[in-house]
Amino acid sequence: MISRLSTLDADFSQRLNALLAWDSVSDHKVAEIVAEIIEAVKSRGDAAVVEYTNRFDRRQAGSLSEFVISAAALREALGAIAPEQRVALEEAARRVRAYHEHQKQDSWQYTEADGTVLGQKITPMERVGLYVPGGKASYPSSVLMNAIPAKVAGVDELTMVVPAPDGELNNMVLAAAAIAGVDRVITIGGAQAVAALAYGTETIARVDKIVGPGNIFVATAKRAVFGQVAIDMIAGPSEILVLCDGLTDPDWIAMDLFSQAEHDEQAQSILISPDAEFLDKVEAAMRRLLPGMSRQAIIQQSLAGRGALILARDMDEAVTLSNRIAPEHLEVSVAEPEALLPRIRHAGAIFMGRHTPEALGDYCAGPNHVLPTSGTARFSSPLGVYDFQKRSSIIFASPEGASILAETASVLARSEDLEAHAVSAEYRKR
Amino acid sequence: MISRLSTLDADFSQRLNALLAWDSVSDHKVAEIVAEIIEAVKSRGDAAVVEYTNRFDRRQAGSLSEFVISAAALREALGAIAPEQRVALEEAARRVRAYHEHQKQDSWQYTEADGTVLGQKITPMERVGLYVPGGKASYPSSVLMNAIPAKVAGVDELTMVVPAPDGELNNMVLAAAAIAGVDRVITIGGAQAVAALAYGTETIARVDKIVGPGNIFVATAKRAVFGQVAIDMIAGPSEILVLCDGLTDPDWIAMDLFSQAEHDEQAQSILISPDAEFLDKVEAAMRRLLPGMSRQAIIQQSLAGRGALILARDMDEAVTLSNRIAPEHLEVSVAEPEALLPRIRHAGAIFMGRHTPEALGDYCAGPNHVLPTSGTARFSSPLGVYDFQKRSSIIFASPEGASILAETASVLARSEDLEAHAVSAEYRKR
Repeated sequence: MISRLSTLDADFSQRLNALLAWDSVSDHKVAEIVAEIIEAVKSRGDAAVVEYTNRFDRRQAGSLSEFVISAAALREALGAIAPEQRVALEEAARRVRAYHEHQKQDSWQYTEADGTVLGQKITPMERVGLYVPGGKASYPSSVLMNAIPAKVAGVDELTMVVPAPDGELNNMVLAAAAIAGVDRVITIGGAQAVAALAYGTETIARVDKIVGPGNIFVATAKRAVFGQVAIDMIAGPSEILVLCDGLTDPDWIAMDLFSQAEHDEQAQSILISPDAEFLDKVEAAMRRLLPGMSRQAIIQQSLAGRGALILARDMDEAVTLSNRIAPEHLEVSVAEPEALLPRIRHAGAIFMGRHTPEALGDYCAGPNHVLPTSGTARFSSPLGVYDFQKRSSIIFASPEGASILAETASVLARSEDLEAHAVSAEYRKR
Repeated sequence: MISRLSTLDADFSQRLNALLAWDSVSDHKVAEIVAEIIEAVKSRGDAAVVEYTNRFDRRQAGSLSEFVISAAALREALGAIAPEQRVALEEAARRVRAYHEHQKQDSWQYTEADGTVLGQKITPMERVGLYVPGGKASYPSSVLMNAIPAKVAGVDELTMVVPAPDGELNNMVLAAAAIAGVDRVITIGGAQAVAALAYGTETIARVDKIVGPGNIFVATAKRAVFGQVAIDMIAGPSEILVLCDGLTDPDWIAMDLFSQAEHDEQAQSILISPDAEFLDKVEAAMRRLLPGMSRQAIIQQSLAGRGALILARDMDEAVTLSNRIAPEHLEVSVAEPEALLPRIRHAGAIFMGRHTPEALGDYCAGPNHVLPTSGTARFSSPLGVYDFQKRSSIIFASPEGASILAETASVLARSEDLEAHAVSAEYRKR
């Protein structure tokens, strides 16, 4: 049901590489369709968005304004969900907000001896677009995780787009938008929604950044408008790596691996332990627990295709492997995870100890669940407040400071054959 | 010689938009060649890099190791440049380093009442590649500006690639690499160098991020490997916007505008002032000063094609326009720039007062000269230490904390039909 590897296998390294390999599909046909949609929205604005939305989502709108959800409808959604669901959303939002407040960066400056002031000014982006998938993959938790950092950063206007095929919408998603402080919800989706956010239309103001997950049309459109606006990363399949000393309840670990595998068939669940018997126990627990799971088929296929139980020499080797994998989610299910933490270098989020399953972080612990996938934790970070702030350098030279700096600037400018640079600096010499 | 606009013109908004319009050229032919080169380097490694380099740069190397510059050669370059050049490079490096030290971010964590620990761990990237153009556009200041933030961040290994057409290299560039602490210099360039850094070869270790400017082949290659590795932004033409109250020496402002225009024909220099007579004086100064400039032809073409002197109603309107333009470089050449600063929202770098020409920031004030172009300051920041660090979320739930969090996670997971998530959380309930 799941591959078994050992770091002592002669072909371990190749097998691990094969297991981790994942190439983002770039489909030429999709790229062509997306380019056409973007061009249509750029040139015909609202009208093009309405046409595509009516066609793809089987709607019958006469104008784009009919897709805009009123504030009253958002409040209604809050009343329509079960009270315990509302409490859970509000508690999750409260904790996510509290954590992200710690990420806010402040402007700073310092004054040098000659009176020259140097610094960095931090400002929020003005407008951000949040893409939320419709239908099956429509998750209220994603609305909270994407919207709250933007609002904590101080973004003026957060516009959420979410397709409503046949006019159907998820009340939990609308309720999450209301709780997260989304400013405007428009029920459009696909490449046409991305294009409208990137270039603006009569009804939709151009945004500075687009975040949020989507299908291949959405991902292709985001890649196409990258540069015109900022985008978040294009996510690959979700993955978990569990490091365990062999002393956590095998049922717990089995279920933690299931929780990743149930996302979709490409999701990846890997366990590394130095205890071979423990790996047997986890595999036995999986076999026992799987038949009772509602998403049994997906879990089974994901584990068979992309899962692995890996036997390591010791926890040290397990950590080395973890850094090589650079996992999106890393559970360190051991007695003293703090002892291993200093050596963990690449991971999107680190879940420490036996009582911190990934699921707590997915929903409500506080940190973001939008994380770098497919080894990109080597160079990427969780989505955060910093993704919605930008910096401007501040330079305020005193007359004395300018005079001194001009000497250096002049020599370097002339060595680069940039005479006007040199003269411009020299003018400020005393 | 340069367009004159007034915000009172009926067609001002259209004219400004036309002036600012700049589309990155994406050339289908170039994309095909680049794709072929990347594929060759991926499959044949060193051999392909050597072949392309021998062909494009007219070299005759038998193996890639012949392109590697020894530490001794770097030290020699330091001795080969003029003493005042070495002093200037060292002084610039010292100031750039000092400024960037302020950008270092630290890990943080906090403990909640029930003992749950939440935090964010900051780590540097392991390996970074720095692209430096060869020939005419080979600037030692760019080496300092790209390399120093990476080393301040703590990057383990910084590899610089710089093509050496016909074997020729710029000693100032090598000296700057030595001073900035570059770990390894390889004299290769083009798409083949980008591919080697992104995918690795027998001789070149795969990097996590590639930074630095390059021609259209380099830019296209960087865009193609984006996702496999991180990249910095794809820069457009450089631009300056000067806001002036009309009381700065017109020669100074004219030369500041020249200093941007001399980069290349696409560079953009714009002055906004509420004083029409001052605009006349600056234009007169330009006419008088231009014939003496060594890069006269480039300056003239850049100003005629993309420059403008704009008359505004008052400084307030000038600031509003500045935010609309979101300039790469913004000079605020007024008596009290601090009074305007709070209203300035979008700019790569802000040069305050009459004594802070852009040229000081280009070389040695301290802040980075790699800045967001073409209005992307709406959502992008100067290159900085933060571009070479990444974050991992830390979650360490106490047994009590996990038990409480599990309630919320379970409700939300079940509302998303993710049962394994719910059960994984519920296992941690007491």
